[in-house]
Amino acid sequence: MTESNDSLQRLAKLDYRQMYNHDFLLTWEKTVQELQAVFTVADILGAMREKNISPRIFDSGLAISVFRDNSTRTRFSFASASNLLGLTVQDLDEGKSQIAHGETIRETSNMISFMADVIGIRDDMYIGKGNAYMRQVAAAVQEGFDDGVLQQRPTLVNLQCDIDHPTQSMADLLHLIHHFGGVEQLKGKKIAMSWAYSPSYGKPLSVPQGIIGLMTRMGMEVSLAYPEGYDLMEDVEEIAGKNAAASGGKFSKTHSMAEAFQDADIVYPKSWASYAAMERRTAMYGEGDFNGIKALEAELLAENAKHKDWECTEAMMKNTRGGKGLYLHCLPADISGVSCQQGEVAASVFDRYRAPLYKQAGYKPYIIAAMIFLSKVKNPVQTLESLINANVKRSYTFSGR
Amino acid sequence: MTESNDSLQRLAKLDYRQMYNHDFLLTWEKTVQELQAVFTVADILGAMREKNISPRIFDSGLAISVFRDNSTRTRFSFASASNLLGLTVQDLDEGKSQIAHGETIRETSNMISFMADVIGIRDDMYIGKGNAYMRQVAAAVQEGFDDGVLQQRPTLVNLQCDIDHPTQSMADLLHLIHHFGGVEQLKGKKIAMSWAYSPSYGKPLSVPQGIIGLMTRMGMEVSLAYPEGYDLMEDVEEIAGKNAAASGGKFSKTHSMAEAFQDADIVYPKSWASYAAMERRTAMYGEGDFNGIKALEAELLAENAKHKDWECTEAMMKNTRGGKGLYLHCLPADISGVSCQQGEVAASVFDRYRAPLYKQAGYKPYIIAAMIFLSKVKNPVQTLESLINANVKRSYTFSGR
Amino acid sequence: MTESNDSLQRLAKLDYRQMYNHDFLLTWEKTVQELQAVFTVADILGAMREKNISPRIFDSGLAISVFRDNSTRTRFSFASASNLLGLTVQDLDEGKSQIAHGETIRETSNMISFMADVIGIRDDMYIGKGNAYMRQVAAAVQEGFDDGVLQQRPTLVNLQCDIDHPTQSMADLLHLIHHFGGVEQLKGKKIAMSWAYSPSYGKPLSVPQGIIGLMTRMGMEVSLAYPEGYDLMEDVEEIAGKNAAASGGKFSKTHSMAEAFQDADIVYPKSWASYAAMERRTAMYGEGDFNGIKALEAELLAENAKHKDWECTEAMMKNTRGGKGLYLHCLPADISGVSCQQGEVAASVFDRYRAPLYKQAGYKPYIIAAMIFLSKVKNPVQTLESLINANVKRSYTFSGR
Repeated sequence: MTESNDSLQRLAKLDYRQMYNHDFLLTWEKTVQELQAVFTVADILGAMREKNISPRIFDSGLAISVFRDNSTRTRFSFASASNLLGLTVQDLDEGKSQIAHGETIRETSNMISFMADVIGIRDDMYIGKGNAYMRQVAAAVQEGFDDGVLQQRPTLVNLQCDIDHPTQSMADLLHLIHHFGGVEQLKGKKIAMSWAYSPSYGKPLSVPQGIIGLMTRMGMEVSLAYPEGYDLMEDVEEIAGKNAAASGGKFSKTHSMAEAFQDADIVYPKSWASYAAMERRTAMYGEGDFNGIKALEAELLAENAKHKDWECTEAMMKNTRGGKGLYLHCLPADISGVSCQQGEVAASVFDRYRAPLYKQAGYKPYIIAAMIFLSKVKNPVQTLESLINANVKRSYTFSGR
Repeated sequence: MTESNDSLQRLAKLDYRQMYNHDFLLTWEKTVQELQAVFTVADILGAMREKNISPRIFDSGLAISVFRDNSTRTRFSFASASNLLGLTVQDLDEGKSQIAHGETIRETSNMISFMADVIGIRDDMYIGKGNAYMRQVAAAVQEGFDDGVLQQRPTLVNLQCDIDHPTQSMADLLHLIHHFGGVEQLKGKKIAMSWAYSPSYGKPLSVPQGIIGLMTRMGMEVSLAYPEGYDLMEDVEEIAGKNAAASGGKFSKTHSMAEAFQDADIVYPKSWASYAAMERRTAMYGEGDFNGIKALEAELLAENAKHKDWECTEAMMKNTRGGKGLYLHCLPADISGVSCQQGEVAASVFDRYRAPLYKQAGYKPYIIAAMIFLSKVKNPVQTLESLINANVKRSYTFSGR
Repeated sequence: MTESNDSLQRLAKLDYRQMYNHDFLLTWEKTVQELQAVFTVADILGAMREKNISPRIFDSGLAISVFRDNSTRTRFSFASASNLLGLTVQDLDEGKSQIAHGETIRETSNMISFMADVIGIRDDMYIGKGNAYMRQVAAAVQEGFDDGVLQQRPTLVNLQCDIDHPTQSMADLLHLIHHFGGVEQLKGKKIAMSWAYSPSYGKPLSVPQGIIGLMTRMGMEVSLAYPEGYDLMEDVEEIAGKNAAASGGKFSKTHSMAEAFQDADIVYPKSWASYAAMERRTAMYGEGDFNGIKALEAELLAENAKHKDWECTEAMMKNTRGGKGLYLHCLPADISGVSCQQGEVAASVFDRYRAPLYKQAGYKPYIIAAMIFLSKVKNPVQTLESLINANVKRSYTFSGR
């Protein structure tokens, strides 16, 4: 566990005291040192598991999940992280609950939290809703804790909202740290966060927003590219700009994929809906105007189809630094000729980066576990040391005891 | 753990030997001492968890849940209780099973029980069905155990049936014990179990039935109020009368909410369907007469609407003892102006009692855990002492070891 | 644990080294010694649990289940086995996932496996699909492991495919071993695997195929009976023939239930669809021809109805050895006059064998646990000894510590 010793020493020098008992909702609400603490703990937990040392810190306790949108990767990552730490996932399936009775969020939040240590929420479908919902839940359980209703204050982890997707962007960044050999190596690297064509409609904005909001913290040069009309939330673009200024990085926008890709060290071509369209959709949803939503969908697909040239082809990849930029995607990607006729990325590009892409996804369970760990453990360094010394086997084998 | 020492001494004096390996189906099948054992163990488990002492008694084992009606509170309470004791919940989702093949209850009960320590069932939709179903399951697993099919005989916990809702009424009563400072303080206290108007249809009778069947055990004065036609099951009313006679309490009925509220120490205003209507509905269901059920629903909503004055308003609350009666509800309540236009309770009344209401709900996980504990542990006092001495941390922290 | 000592000694003499880190997909891919190792470990785990000794070998870890068809027995057996060993089941509900996006099997397999020790799959609906799917998943996680994407290579357990149902047939065989007093007692015993009439359509072929593919390994005389047109997969019949030749058993086919039952020690009357019909159905499914499937269903039910005399009646049972052949079924059975008007078996026959049938089903959790154990534990004998000596209680009782 020599790497872990190094990591523990690094962790000991960081200031992350504010993470204890606090939620993880937006990366830009955290200090750079706090983000580094998450990466460091994620790496330590990964190394421990690799060495068959169990980092279980709970003998019992629930991790509540609320998925208001479909999920495979994040669902399994949350389940993996919770399980690794000793928590049991209890999913709040709003279809099987009594919530339809008109129950308030305040009430439900308390009712599910009597033995909850963590609540993970995905709510990414409607602009202005998801993050707001998470904050309502957070306020409700805080009130419940203050009133003596709850023995413990469950901490929230944002598993994707309308604004940010922190477990994704943090996993992406940890991948970059490993790929380039350290967070300090990222300074000055250029990343192209680019829109790409997809034959599907209404993908959330939270991934590109999360990327520009996070990568600008690390002194990187972030180039955001999209066709006219596919704007992100203004607030987040503003935050990205401020972040870049503070970190010595750069944030710029362009309407050319090729320009963004030019000399890029990293490219992240991914489809999304436009903010304006998502806002219209949210309003229609609020009014129950499902015909309107259908019509909007058709309109947007037609709009998308005007930009089929926004594809991460081999030719496009040639623009990247030495033609060897690192391709990222949050998965699943729309792969031309594989999952659709024409999509975000050429099959040959995707295939070349398959193993690194899967590794990128593999950091998410550890990022989530680290977020939980830092919010639930008062003294992370000593606790990790103590767990490493205790050396309880995750998977029992005769030789192991 | 001084309170726990007192509680353990109290527990040691109670006779609850019959609870070992027995089901918990109706509160009135249990002696007062057995009920007190449940409260005492619930309090001890609560105090242990508060002090971060794990009461886990299972290294593995399943807690099967069967929810034949939607549930949030009880589902999460059952999950919390099972998890606290070390059991993993496995839900029998009858839609995803092969039960539709025409499999018998006897068979399914055994098939799911090979490693089941507990089975929790909610089946509250049809009069004459839910409790009967539970007894069929109980008989089936008993037979399986006797025949050597099952290594252990899973015990059943009634998570709400057509007759009783024991985990609810017991949590309600534990709340009263804490609120009034001891079970002996409840003698002579007046509780109004009153029907209240709701714009929804067909709420189960098991909550009011559970309340009159249980509170009459404790020497309380139970006043049951409802508009003509909203009778409960005759059998249960009879039991309530007998209980009151035996405990030195009182059981009376009235058709006036105000009369029931007069000088009441506790009020429990809650909507329910009438027994006669539920019986008609059950018959229609048996015949597959879904149009009939729809027509009945409309008829009952119209009937309900004649009694909109059965609302727990501020004016109505003034009738209670000193205007300060304790408001109870099993939640979620139909709150006027919040979850519906007009409902069971005024928003200002509900808001004033929100924190105590949530605490009331918070006892349910511990009540369920105590029921499981007393049915699965042969020697509860020594086991609890041993767990307290072992002092395994529920949530690991460095300082904790 | 004297029986366990004997079993451990028997286990020590078997060669099952190839099972470590390998999947369990078809019984005929395993050597007889490997199959015996599964039975032996299943018995040891059963004896340990009976004696309240926990065989938990994982401190954390996921057991992924993928059910592409309804399941009660196998779902609960997989959950029980996983829980007994310390794994948490995480179900991949393909309806709630993002797989519909057109994601590849290769990708999904890796995405769910970052912390997966086992993957159990049921995929039995379409000829040529289920087993092939399992092998695609196996190849994908192998590749992920080789590429450094996965820390561990999850092993697959076939929970029923189009070809075999190994956890069922192995549980059935373990039942026979116990019933007849040892695997060596099975040599020369006659088993009739017979088609039986059912008013339902399209039951999988994997149970009869699994039975003829496995029982022929044990020197048994396997008589396969079905009405003309209800053929099984040719490949599997061929394998059964070869197995019988190698083991000194016999494999024959007949179109008479009575002939198969003649002097049979064991009978397994069960309905299935014909291979040809299942192939037509699979083709229609591939073309999205749901009207075609409906028409085929009606045609097949009419075809089935010509063979209502294929019922395991009391008269039919008289043909068995001394009229006392052992009746087997994988459950649920179509019982005449109980679960249907006329079906696979007379109620009186079924009732007489109810307890043994339930015991037969009760072996499945242990068979699955043994399969997982042998694939995940490098040194099974020493590990089991060590677990028995450690003597951790599965269910804590005061007396137990």
